[in-house]
Amino acid sequence: MYETIRIKSDYIQLLDQRLLPDKIEYFNIRSINDAFIGIRNMIVRGAPAIGVTAAFGIAIALKKMESISLRNFTSLKEYLINSRPTAVNLIWALDKQESIYRQNLHEEPERLFRILFDSAVRMYEEDININKAIGENGQSLLPFNAVVITHCNAGALATCGWGTALGVIRSGKMKNKIKLVYADETRPYLQGSRLTAWELYQDGIPVKIITDSSSAYIMKTNKIDCAIVGADRIALNGDTANKIGTYLLAINCKYHDIPFYIAAPISTFDPDTANGNDIIIEQRDPEEIRKIQNIRIIPENIPAENPSFDITPNELITAYITEKGIVSNEQIKSLFK
Amino acid sequence: MYETIRIKSDYIQLLDQRLLPDKIEYFNIRSINDAFIGIRNMIVRGAPAIGVTAAFGIAIALKKMESISLRNFTSLKEYLINSRPTAVNLIWALDKQESIYRQNLHEEPERLFRILFDSAVRMYEEDININKAIGENGQSLLPFNAVVITHCNAGALATCGWGTALGVIRSGKMKNKIKLVYADETRPYLQGSRLTAWELYQDGIPVKIITDSSSAYIMKTNKIDCAIVGADRIALNGDTANKIGTYLLAINCKYHDIPFYIAAPISTFDPDTANGNDIIIEQRDPEEIRKIQNIRIIPENIPAENPSFDITPNELITAYITEKGIVSNEQIKSLFK
Repeated sequence: MYETIRIKSDYIQLLDQRLLPDKIEYFNIRSINDAFIGIRNMIVRGAPAIGVTAAFGIAIALKKMESISLRNFTSLKEYLINSRPTAVNLIWALDKQESIYRQNLHEEPERLFRILFDSAVRMYEEDININKAIGENGQSLLPFNAVVITHCNAGALATCGWGTALGVIRSGKMKNKIKLVYADETRPYLQGSRLTAWELYQDGIPVKIITDSSSAYIMKTNKIDCAIVGADRIALNGDTANKIGTYLLAINCKYHDIPFYIAAPISTFDPDTANGNDIIIEQRDPEEIRKIQNIRIIPENIPAENPSFDITPNELITAYITEKGIVSNEQIKSLFK
Repeated sequence: MYETIRIKSDYIQLLDQRLLPDKIEYFNIRSINDAFIGIRNMIVRGAPAIGVTAAFGIAIALKKMESISLRNFTSLKEYLINSRPTAVNLIWALDKQESIYRQNLHEEPERLFRILFDSAVRMYEEDININKAIGENGQSLLPFNAVVITHCNAGALATCGWGTALGVIRSGKMKNKIKLVYADETRPYLQGSRLTAWELYQDGIPVKIITDSSSAYIMKTNKIDCAIVGADRIALNGDTANKIGTYLLAINCKYHDIPFYIAAPISTFDPDTANGNDIIIEQRDPEEIRKIQNIRIIPENIPAENPSFDITPNELITAYITEKGIVSNEQIKSLFK
């Protein structure tokens, strides 16, 4: 498996996910601007991977600075937060970096860079450990010969390794529990077919790509044990922002009486968001719908709407799989006590 | 608007819908084999247009024959029926041609060709009239400032003109009732974005393309008055086969309490099909998912599944809009008395 983020001595490299599975290329993050572009243009994607990339990005910003005030630091932080507004891990990671910065205000920028860079390395390592714990907790929910459906990519490619939703599937596979994974292709960006199916296929986990609109048919005509997806932000009441189409999948699971699980680290739960109505939904360029992989399908004068996320209300979610265990929506508040 | 089917003196031309909206090209149907290819390869698509194309195809088959036995005729008919197994209009149109053939068994093949060709011309004209009646009946269901969602293409391009689902929208537009139409892009073949949005845009009807997985989000965040789609086959109990994703859309309408209408001619109702379980679902080449418009996105060794249709159970359908009026599923049987 290719690494999503490669850590070098004083910069990082992102696997360019726009080109997968066709080409394997890495994009260098040597400045905060590179980090902004990396996140904004979806060279890196997936809430956990975005968070760690931002943590490295703000560290790298300090490397060439003569001095850095709290005010400068805060504006750099705001700059990165605006790269993609929906994922809360981005804010969480930058808040963590800010608190470390505040503890080391007296240090020179070069030294501060090293402190924050090392902190980002620890977040990277912690993310992999968290994902393995999510995987171990989640696999307990799977029966033997499990047939699972997933949406978008909440895999190794969305994290620093192992994955959240796909981490559960990987941990299930280690116990020989996985019969088949259906991967929604996930238009417009095709994270399901380009990333999830490719990632699972490489690991020898049986996978089948379906179009997003086939999921109801598949649920009706096959035995599907559960849906497992990732999350970009989870409100205190359990409402969950994730890739567009997650809400639709959850409604279809409800209709077919199939359990619907969210697999996500605690850093995805946002104690400052009471419910889904408070979450900003990123609207992306309609050209992503009129083009496919940069090939024009539809004339640009025909209108299109491209919401990048949707909110799945808590009533449609069976449980949340976290590194601290399986949580119901009533238990979320206790995570913050 | 470009004609879906152009009638010439002794052959027809099909607008090649695989190339739209990029190129306007017509494909000549000068033999039954051309008709088979035209239907099988989706140069023409949409249940009513397929039916009329098949009626022309079997007529054209007789043109160059020295003689034609009933047995020959039946095998030509079977050949065309196998081009696409789900749409019942194909069978209906060929049954109609067979009954005309049987009434004229004594005629020479050249004369028989003309009789059947003229019969196909009448079916063509009748289809347009039926669609206008469907449109007029259906528009009565629309409020003013209606926002409608549709899937696939049940428009002028799926019929000989006017359209079924889009016929209702066109008739609504003539009464100034249409505010906006959301068109699901309809993967893998993109009939929604390439055909429906293009067709409506050309007619000056406000339209917005969305990905198939956005429909639930759109229903939640906008006022959607109803969904209207076409059909490939409707069983006696009302279960309806239509493009993959129709069932999913209907489930989402149910969850959001939005009326879900099927617009289709009586020829789409199949008195020989008791319920949806009896309908054959065409499985198409998985390469249609791994490629987009002939461009490879996903390596061919990664498995994919490509059901072309699904069955929407009658409980999810608010009503059927036909040329004879608005029908409930309990009333379907009376159509055949």
